[in-house]
Amino acid sequence: MPEAYEQTLNRGTLNELTLALSRGMFVQVRNVLHNMPACDVAHLLESSPGKTRILFWDLIDTEFHGEILEELSDDVRNSIIHQMMPEAVAEATEGMDTDDLADVLRNLPDQLYQEVLQALDSQDRHRAEAALAYEEYSAGSVMNTDTVTIRPNVSVEVVLRYLRMRSEIPKTTDTLYIVDEQDVLIGEVSLTALVTSQPEVIISELMNTDIVPIPATMPESEAAILFERHNWISAPVVNEENHLLGRITIDDMVDIIREDAEHSMMSMAGLDDEEDTFAPVVKSTQKRSIWLGVNLLTALLAAMVSNLFEDVLGQLAVLAILNTIVPSMGGVAGNQTLTLVIRAMALGHVSPSNTRSLMIKELTVGILNGIIWSVLIASVVGLWKQDLYLAIVIAFAMLMNMIAAGISGVAVPLILKKFKIDPALAGSVILTTVTDIVGIFAFLGTASWLLM
Amino acid sequence: MPEAYEQTLNRGTLNELTLALSRGMFVQVRNVLHNMPACDVAHLLESSPGKTRILFWDLIDTEFHGEILEELSDDVRNSIIHQMMPEAVAEATEGMDTDDLADVLRNLPDQLYQEVLQALDSQDRHRAEAALAYEEYSAGSVMNTDTVTIRPNVSVEVVLRYLRMRSEIPKTTDTLYIVDEQDVLIGEVSLTALVTSQPEVIISELMNTDIVPIPATMPESEAAILFERHNWISAPVVNEENHLLGRITIDDMVDIIREDAEHSMMSMAGLDDEEDTFAPVVKSTQKRSIWLGVNLLTALLAAMVSNLFEDVLGQLAVLAILNTIVPSMGGVAGNQTLTLVIRAMALGHVSPSNTRSLMIKELTVGILNGIIWSVLIASVVGLWKQDLYLAIVIAFAMLMNMIAAGISGVAVPLILKKFKIDPALAGSVILTTVTDIVGIFAFLGTASWLLM
Repeated sequence: MPEAYEQTLNRGTLNELTLALSRGMFVQVRNVLHNMPACDVAHLLESSPGKTRILFWDLIDTEFHGEILEELSDDVRNSIIHQMMPEAVAEATEGMDTDDLADVLRNLPDQLYQEVLQALDSQDRHRAEAALAYEEYSAGSVMNTDTVTIRPNVSVEVVLRYLRMRSEIPKTTDTLYIVDEQDVLIGEVSLTALVTSQPEVIISELMNTDIVPIPATMPESEAAILFERHNWISAPVVNEENHLLGRITIDDMVDIIREDAEHSMMSMAGLDDEEDTFAPVVKSTQKRSIWLGVNLLTALLAAMVSNLFEDVLGQLAVLAILNTIVPSMGGVAGNQTLTLVIRAMALGHVSPSNTRSLMIKELTVGILNGIIWSVLIASVVGLWKQDLYLAIVIAFAMLMNMIAAGISGVAVPLILKKFKIDPALAGSVILTTVTDIVGIFAFLGTASWLLM
Repeated sequence: MPEAYEQTLNRGTLNELTLALSRGMFVQVRNVLHNMPACDVAHLLESSPGKTRILFWDLIDTEFHGEILEELSDDVRNSIIHQMMPEAVAEATEGMDTDDLADVLRNLPDQLYQEVLQALDSQDRHRAEAALAYEEYSAGSVMNTDTVTIRPNVSVEVVLRYLRMRSEIPKTTDTLYIVDEQDVLIGEVSLTALVTSQPEVIISELMNTDIVPIPATMPESEAAILFERHNWISAPVVNEENHLLGRITIDDMVDIIREDAEHSMMSMAGLDDEEDTFAPVVKSTQKRSIWLGVNLLTALLAAMVSNLFEDVLGQLAVLAILNTIVPSMGGVAGNQTLTLVIRAMALGHVSPSNTRSLMIKELTVGILNGIIWSVLIASVVGLWKQDLYLAIVIAFAMLMNMIAAGISGVAVPLILKKFKIDPALAGSVILTTVTDIVGIFAFLGTASWLLM
């Protein structure tokens, strides 16, 4: 393995550090922590259970607290901040990027928020209040104000002289923005264009005016989709009058792209996107119980449907034994369609022009699935229970439920979206309720008609 | 809404284009397509059902085919390429980025592959073969060879003169690499450092030698995690002797980050990561049937467990009615834990040092959940069926199954990973089998002991 690979934090380091901590080798752990990049320390904290996490945190020099907090996910960051004194939080936020500073403040409980704001120096307080003026999850809330702006009528040489005079520009700068006297954005010039152009070329000849600035009010998720689709590294943020306010960089967008992609999976299981793997037990139980409560209601609903067929169930125990197969298959088939549609919606692939095609496709898949699995289940049940009528009953129920699964797999998320309910959150439970009820009705209903 | 926002492709355009196409307004559609950025055309194709997709494709001028293919996901790209003549594919791949070219070739069926390779000009064939030398999904397979390299002993002014002489460097260049005579990577200098330094400064004083190059053999997913954690825009790729081979840029990594994040969700439903929303019906049915087949087996297994209790089910129909509640709750609780653990594994948060904490935490959540929901279900069943013993039976089964759910939610993915099986793919079905069987055994077993 090349040396380079070992330089980065791997599991071995993680285990060793935890072991050293548990043995009380605090000085050694502190030394290792101080030589690790902030992102790796953040990763270590995310991977540590509550108590170990706080022990590690206390070993880290306060001057590094800020950059480490910047790298943490919301849940973990909050769990740490709640253990800190307001003055320590204020000190840690010094020099933080504007967007991270606002994010930290936004997540503080009211009282702590006021205390931290008081403890900030006036410049940072001003920056924080400006960032907090934008709604959470808007492009404005994730932008930085560290843009480098130039005028259109100067030469490349003048720009280079200006940059040398500044002697430093933000590390992720890939583009200089060209603004007029009123700070209205009129174009951009990339650093690559700047360094490959002759010194006497005038910026206005070089600049790209065909740009798509991001309005500060655009939701950050939409901005992230634009970054992904256009392969941007940074993009300017403007207000409604096209005044340049700041810029968004790809590193902040990558986090949003991952969170949005994970959001559907976590929501489908009734979890928070950024749920801390090592959250305290009571907090985890609380968060998950809503979902379990909803599921209990739907399970009771299914039981009540079965209850309607108490007579036939009492007379034929075999129905009780087979009663779970059809709902289970419908649930799986329906969830396949649902997952596909939820992802397609998240990627922006679903629109009024293609919902009909999507519905017809999934309905046809449902019918095909229904035929395949009803033939199979009929054979199995026929051979096992030696009962032709029973085989016919379960085959019919399977066909019906597979069709219901295909239709509701497309319809449920579309309807939920129309009512502005997140399909990833509520879709799965509603769909399973539909396939449970259709499955039980079709199976026990046909059975009481054909077998009694 | 600011003007900027409307410039980008929105749903309205998508609907209008589909409508115009269905009305046969081919000339108008062609004109709109030719004025759209490649990424937006790609998005349109991804959002279109099979037939419409091919109609759109045929209206696009062949000279744009290449850049649009670069932007498409694997499944959709393949569905289009399979409709093209080998010569047309070869023509489209002209000037493609090396990594995309290799990706296209890799996904071609054998015969077409040979034909396209023959039709390429010799330079492109050479590039393609070099890229194909790296394993699929390795860092080498996603790198580009368009690095700009300089020597350590020259001044900033000399570098700028060299860049001006080249007059063009790749658009996403943010860093120049410094190599010795043997092409061994010794450092890097960012464009931001270059433009802010005095002309007479020597590169070796300016360069950063503390870099973490990516080995060409590293899996692309690991490289993506490094990009995400370190906020890189580009990173050098080296061979085992630290020779510079090329570079990877964040835009390619963003796609991998999204795919990896989506992978778990899609796998948990038994779908392909890049499954085409509008794939042909037969293909979709085939792909999904493996998953449904596995589920049928587990459903039959659960039915066989119920079958062991045929006697008690035959005598007490109420057991048949309530039999689905405990397995259903266990399945949901177990899947919550499973989803959390799968995500934590994907983020690299799980290691031998913390699995014990994780297990204890989820076990405790399981016990707490068990207490809450067994009390609740006992009350509901007690009131509904007016039977104290029945209430006790279902409460006990619920408690047992919630504990089983917590334990297996952590254990199943860990064990699967040890056997190198993807937990996202197989975890959910195994977990549900566990909670189904434990739930049925606990409920019907206790019932036949206490109620008979």
